[in-house]
Amino acid sequence: MAVAKLLAAFLAVLSAGTGGAGAWDVKLELDDGMPLIHMLRPLLSTGGHLGRKGRVPCDSWRFAVETNTLRDWKTIPARCEKYVGNYMMGGHYRSDSRAVVNEAIAYAESLKLSGNGKEVWVFDVDETTLSNLPYYAKHGFGAEPYNWTTFGNYVQEANAPALPETMRLYKRLQALGIKPVILTGRREDKREATAKNLASEGYTGYEKLLLKPQDVKVHSVEFKSGERKKLEDAGYVIVGNIGDQWTDLLGEPEGARTFKLPDPMYYIG
Amino acid sequence: MAVAKLLAAFLAVLSAGTGGAGAWDVKLELDDGMPLIHMLRPLLSTGGHLGRKGRVPCDSWRFAVETNTLRDWKTIPARCEKYVGNYMMGGHYRSDSRAVVNEAIAYAESLKLSGNGKEVWVFDVDETTLSNLPYYAKHGFGAEPYNWTTFGNYVQEANAPALPETMRLYKRLQALGIKPVILTGRREDKREATAKNLASEGYTGYEKLLLKPQDVKVHSVEFKSGERKKLEDAGYVIVGNIGDQWTDLLGEPEGARTFKLPDPMYYIG
Repeated sequence: MAVAKLLAAFLAVLSAGTGGAGAWDVKLELDDGMPLIHMLRPLLSTGGHLGRKGRVPCDSWRFAVETNTLRDWKTIPARCEKYVGNYMMGGHYRSDSRAVVNEAIAYAESLKLSGNGKEVWVFDVDETTLSNLPYYAKHGFGAEPYNWTTFGNYVQEANAPALPETMRLYKRLQALGIKPVILTGRREDKREATAKNLASEGYTGYEKLLLKPQDVKVHSVEFKSGERKKLEDAGYVIVGNIGDQWTDLLGEPEGARTFKLPDPMYYIG
Repeated sequence: MAVAKLLAAFLAVLSAGTGGAGAWDVKLELDDGMPLIHMLRPLLSTGGHLGRKGRVPCDSWRFAVETNTLRDWKTIPARCEKYVGNYMMGGHYRSDSRAVVNEAIAYAESLKLSGNGKEVWVFDVDETTLSNLPYYAKHGFGAEPYNWTTFGNYVQEANAPALPETMRLYKRLQALGIKPVILTGRREDKREATAKNLASEGYTGYEKLLLKPQDVKVHSVEFKSGERKKLEDAGYVIVGNIGDQWTDLLGEPEGARTFKLPDPMYYIG
């Protein structure tokens, strides 16, 4: 009797887990060569054991990643590939993103805007406005070392889907009169592809698209905070700043509020 | 057959979940009046539904909290009391803390120390060196509004247990020759109780215990970054900084590396 109840509850969880797929997920599922990941795994596959020295469940590894405690890592732990895959492909990534965007919209709606058109919101590109999940799903969700060539080719295809939660924020901000500024670590040789991809996914009407100079060696925090400083010097007020990497959000001026989207697949220093 | 396999796997998860209790957890469980929380709940009680407007699962609420996206909140969402209780009392909180401390120790061990005894590591107190979980377990895990009187009385009892993962870091740092500095938002009227509590839990040999002046109105970031600046001005090198609140970790000088411990129970601005 008790066991039957447990099982019923368990199956209800499974069904809730698979019921969260929206249009975005379906699009990804239709992509050729996409690995099929069983929805059960997020619950069962923690990929590690508390008792083993130096090992923590993948969920706790993700905590340390998302809070900027783990830094300069090159690939996700091999044992966490399935965990990260399920996090990204199941409802979890989407719902974490939703929590962030809900807060961003509530904050934006609470602002008293000047009406002079100078308030801007800074958006990162990769894993913020656009999703590279179709690429990463074919490359171990971050378990494979970064490959400049294959990822560069993927970017040039300009087919990355919009992150739907970020799109919701983007449109709401525009309706409120806050202008989006796109600020990315992609370099200038990706400008055309990036602009094309953003436009085809519906990111239109932004104030600026700022990319890294082609041949300058500069760390992400330095580049991005420098560009934000230029915005402020030009009279803009950065009311918000959203990105998936801490290097998007740290370094003065950060913007009045920062919003950290999830990204357990890669680290940019 | 498939169902039997699912059930077996499910029961294995339950058993793994209940098997994580260490000496620390046992101590808490023995405490009078502690609510009994079923280990099953972390899996089943997400306390929210993706589809409902403005609502996200408690797990995603926690993501937004831990990444400094949600700010200035007074209490945890009422629907998340059981979720947070299970997170704190089950193995999840402990394993997230372990992930952070594993990284902190690996980082500390990688440092080339000067040998001049000037390298320090800054530790926060509440939910960092000491755990107020015995208090919060009786007060809704953050679901009840903060009560200065009852929490103040609890602090004066000086009976808070050590966070075991932080203790592991503390001892390892001392063995390496890095001196702990305790920096807390607790005010000077709590100095005696705090020092007594730290000592009785084994936090001995620290370089300084810095508390907030009694009657000065100062925000946490301002106070803590100011104290860190004084340390640097006095010739100390802050090689690491660990705390459960972002206000422990933001504001120059932050320290060479920061380590964010979990705390889904309350927010300090």
